[in-house]
Amino acid sequence: MNDLPARVRIQEEGPREGFQYEKGPIPTQRKIELIDRLAQTGLDHIQIVSFVNPKAVPGMADAEDVVRGITPQPGVAYTALWLNDVGFKRALAVGTLDLKGSIHLAASAAFLKRNQNRTPQEQLQAQYDIVRMYKESGVEVERGSVMAAFGCNFEGEIPPARVVELVQRQLDVAKENGVSLTYILLADTMAWATPMSIKRLLGILREKYPDIEFALHLHDTRGMGIANAFAGLEMGVTRFDSSVAGLGGCPFAGHKGAAGNVCTEDLVFMCHEMGIDTGIDLDALIDCARLAEEIVGHPLPGSVMRGGNLQARRDALKARS
Amino acid sequence: MNDLPARVRIQEEGPREGFQYEKGPIPTQRKIELIDRLAQTGLDHIQIVSFVNPKAVPGMADAEDVVRGITPQPGVAYTALWLNDVGFKRALAVGTLDLKGSIHLAASAAFLKRNQNRTPQEQLQAQYDIVRMYKESGVEVERGSVMAAFGCNFEGEIPPARVVELVQRQLDVAKENGVSLTYILLADTMAWATPMSIKRLLGILREKYPDIEFALHLHDTRGMGIANAFAGLEMGVTRFDSSVAGLGGCPFAGHKGAAGNVCTEDLVFMCHEMGIDTGIDLDALIDCARLAEEIVGHPLPGSVMRGGNLQARRDALKARS
Repeated sequence: MNDLPARVRIQEEGPREGFQYEKGPIPTQRKIELIDRLAQTGLDHIQIVSFVNPKAVPGMADAEDVVRGITPQPGVAYTALWLNDVGFKRALAVGTLDLKGSIHLAASAAFLKRNQNRTPQEQLQAQYDIVRMYKESGVEVERGSVMAAFGCNFEGEIPPARVVELVQRQLDVAKENGVSLTYILLADTMAWATPMSIKRLLGILREKYPDIEFALHLHDTRGMGIANAFAGLEMGVTRFDSSVAGLGGCPFAGHKGAAGNVCTEDLVFMCHEMGIDTGIDLDALIDCARLAEEIVGHPLPGSVMRGGNLQARRDALKARS
Repeated sequence: MNDLPARVRIQEEGPREGFQYEKGPIPTQRKIELIDRLAQTGLDHIQIVSFVNPKAVPGMADAEDVVRGITPQPGVAYTALWLNDVGFKRALAVGTLDLKGSIHLAASAAFLKRNQNRTPQEQLQAQYDIVRMYKESGVEVERGSVMAAFGCNFEGEIPPARVVELVQRQLDVAKENGVSLTYILLADTMAWATPMSIKRLLGILREKYPDIEFALHLHDTRGMGIANAFAGLEMGVTRFDSSVAGLGGCPFAGHKGAAGNVCTEDLVFMCHEMGIDTGIDLDALIDCARLAEEIVGHPLPGSVMRGGNLQARRDALKARS
């Protein structure tokens, strides 16, 4: 029964997911404050900004100022998101960031058409140019990423065989370009996954690719985030994207109720309570979640920041006895 | 891998949990409205009121009026909670209700001392009187219930062996009184459970008692509710208490952030998406969750009522193609 990993790596995406999504303008200095606090929790990977069109995403118009404003901590990788070569060049130019390239494929043709106006074949071809661009810039191509890996609002269910095929394509692109992927990220972009579909797909993938590490990017739109993460842990998943306090939402999902990533401190709580190491100080992270809520000025979905860490209760009980 | 049950039974506790917990007065008529709507979703068990001291719980002072006001649906069991014989007599007197008796034990002596000012031995002895009271009133003793089965804010971890012992005591009390328990309910009263501790305890109990049906009552204080329910399903649990929209909170937990039961429509969503029948119309239930939010006048924690049912999306996609 206990096939859980001893340690997982958590990639914090709250600053990027959240500040890109929030309606009102958030002062640059407050974004920097949250990022600097997150960097003191033991998190070793924080995605802090996206380099996207400031007309489309005004909340990220200050991306360069945010990057220049942080106080980098040793051992923390500060990363960013970009959607095209214009964004990538901005990320390269600003410095400080730990840039990692991805090979991106989407498991839904309808999603791809709608969001990037491309066919799957065109998207695959584009990955060759993108990998070349990364290589020429000396940027490591770290991972393959499969969007909409579990289902799509515009297409419905995604058969696992299609995801397996896309993973193989990503490995092919990497091999043909002489790069080696550290891991494959499966994104439940539109929150169609259930714990059973997580187990089914990971079961097939881990059988076929026993030496590849898999990561999950889980949106909590239908409340399945933590259950899906647990199912992933049971299948030996060792990397998760997550978002402090549950900051964020998915602007691409095509519906208003779309929620952000699974909540970091709730995920860390579950891991620690089940004996899985994350390297993160949960109490410090809970403080960050409360800070995030204060910064955005409205309640965020995280539970443990309200319900409280159990370790603190255990310590208090021990001190009393 | 797929050891999931084909069907689960869900006991809706939202009206009782929620209206007992909410601060402001809620008009009796609105409580009745929600209960009558819930009774049309396919739910076959709804706990609608508690008969408790109206000075301690003013939100339940109208319990009799609520019971008298509903329009009972055939096939729906309307139940109630009481904490002592005064409450039980009120429940008996009002009629309409489907009264079921429980044998209640708590796995934490500290919790018991604090909430009932009893020792475990005194609580066990009291169960004999309670069972006799039920028998004399012609009320079926339906279940054993173990509170704080996974951990306690005032005592810490609860060893599984202690829960096994309490289950045995309940079976003994039942046997000595010539009654037979339909199932045993394990309550994570203070939200200490994780998916692994659910699996561990259920694994031990199901090994020892292969013929007994187990139920889970899960509080979502630390965001583990749905993940814990999934772990329960994986261990063959076939009954769950839950609360529409996540209505409620636990007045006994001794801390402010205590959340209500796992959210009914999120649980039903997960079950349906994994092929588990509940007999419930999810869309009708989501309408009830929205009604509950309107009645209490503030956001409630449910996710699917915001994120939306996937089956509706599938049907829309099918209609378009």
